[in-house]
Formats: sequence, C-alpha cells, structure tokens
Amino acid sequence: MKKSAFIIILLNINFFAFSQQKTAPARPNIIVFLVDDMGIMDTSLPFCDSTMPLNKRYHTPNMERMAKDGMKFVNAYAQPVCTPTRTSLMTGMNSTRTHVTNWTSPQKNNNTDEKDEQFFPLNWNINGFSPGSDIENSVKATPFPILLRDAGYYTIHVGKAHWGSMGTPGANPYNLGFMVNIAGHAAGHPQSYLAEQRYGNMPGKTQAQAVPDLEEYYDSDTFLSEALTLEAKKALAIPIARKEPFYLNLAHYAVHVPIMADKRFVQKYYDAGLDSTEAKYASLVEGMDKSLGDIMDFLKAKGVDKNTMIIFMSDNGGLDAHQRGGPVNTHNYPFKSGKGSVYEGGVREPMIVKWPLAVPANSVNRNPVIIDDFFPTILEIAGIKAPKITQKLDGLSLFAALKSPEVKLQDRPLVFHYPNKWTTVKDEAVLGINYYSAIRFGNWKLIYQMRTQKFELYDLSKDIGEQHNLSSTNPTQTKKLAILLGKTLKERGAQMPVEKATGKAVPFPDEIFGN
Amino acid sequence: MKKSAFIIILLNINFFAFSQQKTAPARPNIIVFLVDDMGIMDTSLPFCDSTMPLNKRYHTPNMERMAKDGMKFVNAYAQPVCTPTRTSLMTGMNSTRTHVTNWTSPQKNNNTDEKDEQFFPLNWNINGFSPGSDIENSVKATPFPILLRDAGYYTIHVGKAHWGSMGTPGANPYNLGFMVNIAGHAAGHPQSYLAEQRYGNMPGKTQAQAVPDLEEYYDSDTFLSEALTLEAKKALAIPIARKEPFYLNLAHYAVHVPIMADKRFVQKYYDAGLDSTEAKYASLVEGMDKSLGDIMDFLKAKGVDKNTMIIFMSDNGGLDAHQRGGPVNTHNYPFKSGKGSVYEGGVREPMIVKWPLAVPANSVNRNPVIIDDFFPTILEIAGIKAPKITQKLDGLSLFAALKSPEVKLQDRPLVFHYPNKWTTVKDEAVLGINYYSAIRFGNWKLIYQMRTQKFELYDLSKDIGEQHNLSSTNPTQTKKLAILLGKTLKERGAQMPVEKATGKAVPFPDEIFGN
Repeated sequence: MKKSAFIIILLNINFFAFSQQKTAPARPNIIVFLVDDMGIMDTSLPFCDSTMPLNKRYHTPNMERMAKDGMKFVNAYAQPVCTPTRTSLMTGMNSTRTHVTNWTSPQKNNNTDEKDEQFFPLNWNINGFSPGSDIENSVKATPFPILLRDAGYYTIHVGKAHWGSMGTPGANPYNLGFMVNIAGHAAGHPQSYLAEQRYGNMPGKTQAQAVPDLEEYYDSDTFLSEALTLEAKKALAIPIARKEPFYLNLAHYAVHVPIMADKRFVQKYYDAGLDSTEAKYASLVEGMDKSLGDIMDFLKAKGVDKNTMIIFMSDNGGLDAHQRGGPVNTHNYPFKSGKGSVYEGGVREPMIVKWPLAVPANSVNRNPVIIDDFFPTILEIAGIKAPKITQKLDGLSLFAALKSPEVKLQDRPLVFHYPNKWTTVKDEAVLGINYYSAIRFGNWKLIYQMRTQKFELYDLSKDIGEQHNLSSTNPTQTKKLAILLGKTLKERGAQMPVEKATGKAVPFPDEIFGN
Repeated sequence: MKKSAFIIILLNINFFAFSQQKTAPARPNIIVFLVDDMGIMDTSLPFCDSTMPLNKRYHTPNMERMAKDGMKFVNAYAQPVCTPTRTSLMTGMNSTRTHVTNWTSPQKNNNTDEKDEQFFPLNWNINGFSPGSDIENSVKATPFPILLRDAGYYTIHVGKAHWGSMGTPGANPYNLGFMVNIAGHAAGHPQSYLAEQRYGNMPGKTQAQAVPDLEEYYDSDTFLSEALTLEAKKALAIPIARKEPFYLNLAHYAVHVPIMADKRFVQKYYDAGLDSTEAKYASLVEGMDKSLGDIMDFLKAKGVDKNTMIIFMSDNGGLDAHQRGGPVNTHNYPFKSGKGSVYEGGVREPMIVKWPLAVPANSVNRNPVIIDDFFPTILEIAGIKAPKITQKLDGLSLFAALKSPEVKLQDRPLVFHYPNKWTTVKDEAVLGINYYSAIRFGNWKLIYQMRTQKFELYDLSKDIGEQHNLSSTNPTQTKKLAILLGKTLKERGAQMPVEKATGKAVPFPDEIFGN
C-alpha cells in the first residue's frame, strides 16, 4: 500500500502542476502599448527630475497610475521616426543594421527621402520589413511574435502596423506572427480619427491611409483610439477565456497627424487657453491615456493583471517642426527639437513597465535603454531560450533591470542614425534633422552632422537640453565617441549618404579622426 | 508491486489518451467552403442523374475529386439570395424566423427592397445579423463559431462575410466568434477581383465593396480567389502547428458579379466558343475550384486531411436574370430560373462533404437538406452538447446521414421565403422572383406567389424542371402543402408583404383555403 500511496501522491502533484498552469500561466502575458509620435513631455507624468511646464499642460492620469504601480524608465530611446523604431521592435536589430532608417511609403519601391542638393537619395530598405521573403529593398529577420506564437502565445496586433509597403508581406501583420490583426496595414497614419468620417473610408475619398477593419463603428461617435481599445479588449478576452498566455501589440495611431480633436477631452484644453492645434493635440494624448487605463482596468477585472507585463512606449519624439501650434523647439522642452531629430527631443521616449509579480512598484530606472532591447527582453520573459532566428541582435535583455532599479546595465553604445532627408524645411530652421548620426554612451552624447562632418558633444548628466556643445573644449571625449560611433556603425553595416559632387559616401565619424 | 504496476498502467493509458488528443484530436477540424452565387450546374460534377450540357461547359476537377472522396448531396438547398443563407448558416434558423429575407446593404438602415406598386417595402431585418447587440432591425442569436471558439476550436473566417451592415457588430466577423478575419466585412461582393486594381482599393475610386486586408498582394497578378486561398492556408498552419482543432469559414467572393476573367483559366473557355461574359464566368468557377484543390492538398500535406470535414456549398442559385451572357432561364438548366427565385434554379445547391474518417467515399445522399442544418450538424460533430443559445433552431443534424447515405432523414418542410422585391425587371420576364414563398416536403414542391395568391405544385421526382404545374389536377396535395407551408410560416413568425391598397398583409397560404 505504501508504494501505491506514493504514486498517488505523485499523480496529485502532477495534476496540481497541470491545473496551476491552466489557471495562472508561469509565462506572463505581455502587452506593448506603443504610442505614435508621442513626445516624452506630452504627459502629466514627469520624466525629468522635476515637474516641468508641459507636464502641467497634459492630463494623463493613467500613465501616472501605471508608473505608481510599475517602473518608469527616464533614459529610454527610440529612433527619430517611426518605421525604423517599429522594425527594431520586431527584430531586435538597430536601424543601422536593418537599413530601415526612414519611414516607409504605403506604396512599394517609393523612396520617401526628400530630394537634396548635396546628397543622392539613400538606397535604404525602402520597402521596410518583409519577414521570410525575397522582396527587394526590405530587411529579413524573424520577428518575435512568430516565436511567441509558436511557443503557445496568443498574439494580437491592434492599431498601426507600418512595417512594410503594399505589395510586400510586411504590409500584413499576419506575416509577422500575429494571429489577430485589427486595423494594421501599410500606412503610417490614419486618414481620419473620426467614425463620422469612417476613419477615411468615404466612397470616392479614400486614400491609402484609410483605417481598415472598423466598419462596425462607422457613423457612430467612436473616436479611433476608443475603437482600437474596444477591439483590443474583445481580442484579449479570447486567450484569457482559453487560459492561454497572450501578447498584445496595441499600437495607437494617436498622436500622429492629422491632429484632430477627441471631443471627449478637448474642451478643457480650449478652456486652458491653448491654441486650437495644441488643444486638439492634448485631447489626442488624453484619449490615448484613457485607452491605457481601460486596458489596465480590463486586465484587473479579468484577474490577469498581476502576471501581465505592460510596456508603455512611444516610437519617436514629439512632433516639433511641422503642423504643431506655437513656436518650434518648444514642444519637448526642456529637450531639444523633436520628431526626425537625433537630439533628445527626437529620440527620448516616455517608457513605463508594469508587471506586479516581478517589477517593483513606484520605481524609477535610470539605465539608458533602447527599443532594440524589447526583443530579447520579451523572449527572456516568455521563457524562450536559444530561439531560431536569422538576425544578429543589437538589443540587450532588460529583465534583470526590470526586477530591480538598482541593477546597472553594462555601458554600451546607443545609436541613432538618420542618413536620410525627412523634411524640406531648411536645415537651419530645424534642429538635428536630416543627415545626422548620434551616439549615447554613459552620460555622453555625440552628434555627427553628415552634411558638414562636424561634431557636437553634450554631457547629458548636466545638460539635458543639449545647449552646451563641448566638442571643442573636450576633444578627447569627442574623439573617443566618434571612434565608438564609427566602429559601431561599421560593425552593423550602416549606410551613409553619398555626395552628388564626388560620388563618395560621407566618411564614418571615426574616419574624421583618421581611423 | 502488483498494485503499483496497475497504477502505472493506468498512468500510461492516460498519457496515451493525452498524446492521442494532441496529435489527432477526437474533435474533427471543420471547413465550410462556401461559394457565392454558384449554381448547381456550374460544375463538371453532375448533380443530376446524368451528365448535362452545362456539366460539359465547366471544369471543376477538384469538386469531382472531393465527391469521389466524399458524399455528394443532390437535394441540398439554401435561400434565393445570399445574406439570408449566410445568416441561417450562422444561426441554424430559417430565414422565415430571422426576418433576414433579403441581402443587406453595406449601409445601415438601408432597405434594399426595390420599390413596388402593389406592396409597401417590407420591414425586414435590414441590418442583418447582429449577435448580442441592441441594433434595430437585426436578428439576435448565438452564432456557432462562438460556441466552437469557446470549446477550444481555432476559428477562422476568410473571404466574404456580409452578415451585417456598417455601423453594426455584424459587420465584423470577430463579433461572430471568429478569432481570425481576413477580407470579411459588410459588403456582399468585391469591387474588383484584380490585384492590379487592389481589389478596389484605388485612391479616390474606392467604394464600400473594396476588399480589405489584402494589401500584400496589391499590384501583383494574384487573383482574389488565389489571395484568399493563400491567406486561408497561412491561417490554417497556426492551429495545425498548435495541435488545436480548427473551424475555417472559407467564403469565396467568387463567383459573384462583377464577372471578371481569371486569366489563369479563361482562355480555354474563349477557345470553346463561349461568349465573353460566360467565358469569364467559367474562369471564376475554375479559379474557385483550384482553391478547393489547394486546400485539400494542403490538409493532406499537413497530415490532417483524414479528420477534417469539409463541406462544399453555395449560398444561392446561379445568376440567371442579370449580367450573364446568353438567354434567361438557361444558366441552371435543367433547373428553372436562378438567383432570387424560389424555383429550383434559385435554391438548389451543389453540396459535397468530405471527411475520410467518417463519411463514406464516392457516396450520394438523396435526403433533402437545407443550410439551416449546418449549425446543429457542426455542433454535434464538434461534440458540443446542449449549447447555451438563445435562438430556436430550424435545422436538423445531418450526422447520421453523413455516416451512411442509406439513412433516411425524417420528412420535414424545407421553406424558401422571399417576401421582398429583388429586381425591377418585370415579373413576367423573370421566374419565381419577387414576393414568393415555397415549400419542399418529400418530393413535392409548392410555390405560392404572394402577388396573385396563386399556387403551383410540382412533383420533383418526375419533374425536376418544374414544368408541369399540378395544382389544378392535384388540389388535395396543393391544399395539404399550402396548409403545411402556412402553418410553418406562422410558427416561425414569418413576415408577409403588406398591400398598399388595403394596408393588409398578404394572407398566409393556408388562409387561402380558409384555415
């Protein structure tokens, strides 16, 4: 009897382990909540050491709540424009390696680089990310949602995709490993946020930016951010009911242009005296923040909030130069410039992570981190070891740092590379936009302007606004970083623009110093 | 030792059962392969007792192969137009009960009934099927994909949806229980079959019928039927890899208008001397048939063909009156009339079932069956007993008949009800179209024209073409069926059109006989 009793105990243990797995998966659920074109200052949650004027302009109570329950990253980075960041998110590769350094057109084989007098258009991967295909001018790699899906995760994409052009596999999130796709396609912004305008799908007026898949909300008063949130909750309910771990890529179209009023929130910003554009912009931000709150509430109501990791992130800096109200270089203050720029205003992002079972509440993480890190972090957290992938990763897993803000990650070069031309506004009128490369290493930041082959050096520990160029007073540090940037760019096979006058590529920054 | 050995054996049995379930689910995979507007004669597979001239026109080798491997139903029915059939498929209710008796407009609250001098427009459920909502003029019910999904099936919709209008939940297949939706929305036909025309999504030219979700094929030469097939295979690969049972609703847009050439197949039909429209139509049929073959090949290659039940079906009779080449009343010969009609040409469908583990190969089933039967059949096969549903089913499970063609199903009224106006072509020029109701019971068929309140009676065992109206020579059978039709219509709460002259509804057929 003793032996059989022993076996029955073993049986019970196995059964218990099995039931545990069914009701509380060891593998956490994962959500990347990605906002489009949101600047680090577009929030009432301060990412600087003190509350700044812009923090008082915006109302994002749910970001505040999330930070209170989780970890705020105050040195988080992405690339200056969206497709490069989104491709790095999917592949774990830096844009220097993907050659997706500019935003992709919805039209195939259409180089979005503006014409320039000095440089030929760059031969970058203008068709974006095309997993497993032979599409010309596209980067191949294994996106992590495929790995999550194959490991049993239920993978959902809702919102903006913008990974590849029409006529390429990258246009369709299904090809990136998503089992569900709602509203994601080749376009990088919505034709309209308004259900009254069918998100752009008006017969005879539709452009490539008309948002797909939301017909059920047409002609109602459902703002796009709300429709995406409702769809995300509907999609989440399925793996929750099936006791499957899930990955949700909730990529809001907000707060990208066209800047349109979210009627639910705009009045308070008019009342606060903001100009019309800025009031609308602030309403877009608050509508996005409501979505974040709704998702957190939904997870809690379903009892899965504790083992769900949510990463809040934006894909580039806040729009500064075009289509905003008020003067240039004020929209990300105290940070310099904005979207398109390698200055902090263009690449520093509001990042928050909430995961009650693992990430300490109300914590602040000062490690410099970058979008390339998401891929290895997510795989480690999902327990996927030695994945079969074709690409070389540039990112680093943040898991240890997530568990404790005291953990100091190794110093490594964070590179922002933009060998492209984003805007035809004259270079003098924009800051750090068009043909720039930059590196952050520790607290130092080096900027390399390809047009002039000149450097700027900033000490971010003392000069967050990049106002005091130390390149001439600290040539040693300038040279050191130029060499590190050049070495990193070359190791990753980065592209440099080619001079029309000479037919030669701009020298890598280390070469300026004779390396 | 004996006792523990016994327990170990038990353990092994359990383990074996578990592994079996993982590699070959007891619950079969299920595919409904639904063609749009395909007539029963639009195929080289004869559904009559002999090969007819139209069988020689068309080339559908994969339908032939499927019938050889499975069971051909030669008395299968649907409703005269598409949304009613599609709603019956999802709900198991006859259209008399759903009040979805006509095709739904993509636009909400838009009655598609043509104007009529005699009758007011019918107050039918013009917004279609809206599961679980409070949308006016829509039918509520629990669609079976929700039940399959909740039972662990991986549910996929690819192709035409057309269950509800824009601005209602029925516009979105996700709300019907599908976890994947590719290309399904509120519209009932494609704006274009051509990738060169982006399936209709040309900037500035897009209508409500532009097919969503297929951007990756734009500007290629991928015909719509092919794109849907490729997407279906991609979607199927996921549950197969995850060892989950699946349900696929592969609902081709083909062979609905616009009648466009599928270049892969059209030349042989030109060469055969068909007129341009008919050649194109035949190419649409063959492109659809290739899709069927590709799906069967894919299942076999993946090793899941044996336990997958595929049901091939069309949603109404072949188009006869409009937009076809050649004279009217020839397109479904020997059957009378076509789409929109309650004559056999409008409601009799090509139906084949293949399921190697359960359905005998190369068998012919003569039981009269109807689209309403799919719901209970699928649930029984999936092992879902006593499902929580709100609707009363009109269909009958066909499981017993699927296992043996010898099983005779109980006689029951099959009702086709069209109290609507489909076409403005004068009634004399079309047959059995606009304001008709009909019943098949055994081999008898009674037709009730609401406009004239007159009856026609046919004996289908001798007169498949409905050429010999027996209503005056067999008043007993006429009365018997009129009473049965009237009783059934009333039991199901069917609607009848209202006369403008009197404000009164047309009498139910039994009332003509004083019942």
